Amino acid sequence: MRAVADIPDDYAILFLTSGATVQFSMVPANFLDGGVADYCHTGVWSGKAIEEARRHGTPHVACSAQASNFSTIPTSCEWSAAPRYVHFTSNNTIYGTQWATEPAAPAGVPLICDASSDLFSRPIDIRKYGLIYASAQKNLGPPGVTLVIARRALIATGHKDLPPLSQYRTYERERSMHNTPNTFGVYVIAEVMEWILREGGLAEMERRNRAKADLLYGFLDQSQLWRAHAQPGSRSAMNVTFRGASAAHEERLLELAEARGMSGLRGHRSVGGMRASIYNAFPLHGVERLVQTLSDVERGS
Amino acid sequence: MRAVADIPDDYAILFLTSGATVQFSMVPANFLDGGVADYCHTGVWSGKAIEEARRHGTPHVACSAQASNFSTIPTSCEWSAAPRYVHFTSNNTIYGTQWATEPAAPAGVPLICDASSDLFSRPIDIRKYGLIYASAQKNLGPPGVTLVIARRALIATGHKDLPPLSQYRTYERERSMHNTPNTFGVYVIAEVMEWILREGGLAEMERRNRAKADLLYGFLDQSQLWRAHAQPGSRSAMNVTFRGASAAHEERLLELAEARGMSGLRGHRSVGGMRASIYNAFPLHGVERLVQTLSDVERGS
Repeated sequence: MRAVADIPDDYAILFLTSGATVQFSMVPANFLDGGVADYCHTGVWSGKAIEEARRHGTPHVACSAQASNFSTIPTSCEWSAAPRYVHFTSNNTIYGTQWATEPAAPAGVPLICDASSDLFSRPIDIRKYGLIYASAQKNLGPPGVTLVIARRALIATGHKDLPPLSQYRTYERERSMHNTPNTFGVYVIAEVMEWILREGGLAEMERRNRAKADLLYGFLDQSQLWRAHAQPGSRSAMNVTFRGASAAHEERLLELAEARGMSGLRGHRSVGGMRASIYNAFPLHGVERLVQTLSDVERGS
Repeated sequence: MRAVADIPDDYAILFLTSGATVQFSMVPANFLDGGVADYCHTGVWSGKAIEEARRHGTPHVACSAQASNFSTIPTSCEWSAAPRYVHFTSNNTIYGTQWATEPAAPAGVPLICDASSDLFSRPIDIRKYGLIYASAQKNLGPPGVTLVIARRALIATGHKDLPPLSQYRTYERERSMHNTPNTFGVYVIAEVMEWILREGGLAEMERRNRAKADLLYGFLDQSQLWRAHAQPGSRSAMNVTFRGASAAHEERLLELAEARGMSGLRGHRSVGGMRASIYNAFPLHGVERLVQTLSDVERGS
């Protein structure tokens, strides 16, 4: 993994047997300690992270995309005076937006990122981060593992009066084997890392993901029937959300797509519409087939 | 699973993406709430459960096997006046002891059991329990899942000011899919349940496990060189712990066993000695080979 993402030695790589939403509690339990932390609110998952932080201190919403119905990534944030950390969600699966680059957190404040849905989909400068967490099941491996990459010096500042498995230091000290981890999941992650390296690394992953996303957004932007939800500059290369001119068109798409071997296009139940998830493993020809199908629905065939 | 273990409808079956040691915190977080709970102390894992309970109230050690160096299961317990629950560890992997039957908890007090290492190795009367938890990796499936079987009425009494994933009711309400679970692990557990049914169910598992354990303990009891750690009546049918007359004999056993395809015989690092784990999946002919090897070492071959 260090070869894939250039992870410096002063960062620990931890494997937790849990989903990433456990981090919504674990991050503030370790690092908030009654203080203030700044949160960037860009969708459903960041909202849940903010709610959980309230148990341990005061989350300050430094920026919010709520006014645009989460179709944008905020361009500026109002940081509080001395936040314990800044938290953001790099990719928003439900609304289909993605940070093009990290928010400019105040100097010296640890940047903490929920990168569950885009880690290792593109190159990343680990040094900008205090802690990154990601559930495995998008670009890393099967569900049931959360990967944490964290600066060792930050881990050392964590609250100590917590159950051992709620402290990052336990995983660091015991090399993620304080108790028996999700061995199958970790094994598959190692296999996926080998695959990424063989295919050309993160730069190649980004090139492929960009090509897939450009093809799909390009079609949507010229369509009279289909319309992308996310605004240019804020668009996700992982989850492309869009709507048809009518519910009937959307139903027709689902039907035709199903017949052509494409499933899971219905948007998250909380927002409706359509969503095409095109993670690392999804091939360009799949996007080509989707664009053809969108076009066929538009031409009434 | 309900077919395997006769789990009544007023019990929920929950799959948690975590190891069983998370339950050491989650049980008292849900049900202790500053009160007193009675714990049966029979080994390393029960000790860890007691330590974690201290964060949430007062664990009362109702019985302890410490005086016998954990070679026995206590025959009587001193219950406190009104414990919130009684907690015991049905099988002790490190010392190799096992409760032959459940401790006689006071009437009306929920019995909570860490059955990580013997659940579904023998028939079990679920109705005696308030809550049973078990990590998957002994008799159920791969690591990374904890199975919880709990009386719905007990779940409903759980503390509510906890993160959603720390409340049993979240798993019950959302059928273990509040977040993406360890899908592969749950799938394999279903396959293992089918296997248990095909092989003859829990009664047949018990018959096989008893036959394996009897063969091994029978040999140890007549041996001049080898000696079982656990006392008759307290012996585990899952983990058979024993010592040789000298370290040299133990090293010779490890060497010869390795050459014959048997590994993992070294006891847990915290107690030393030897340990043969003979879970459901371990075949009788494996125990026969071990006995032959123990005998060969004794005869000096």
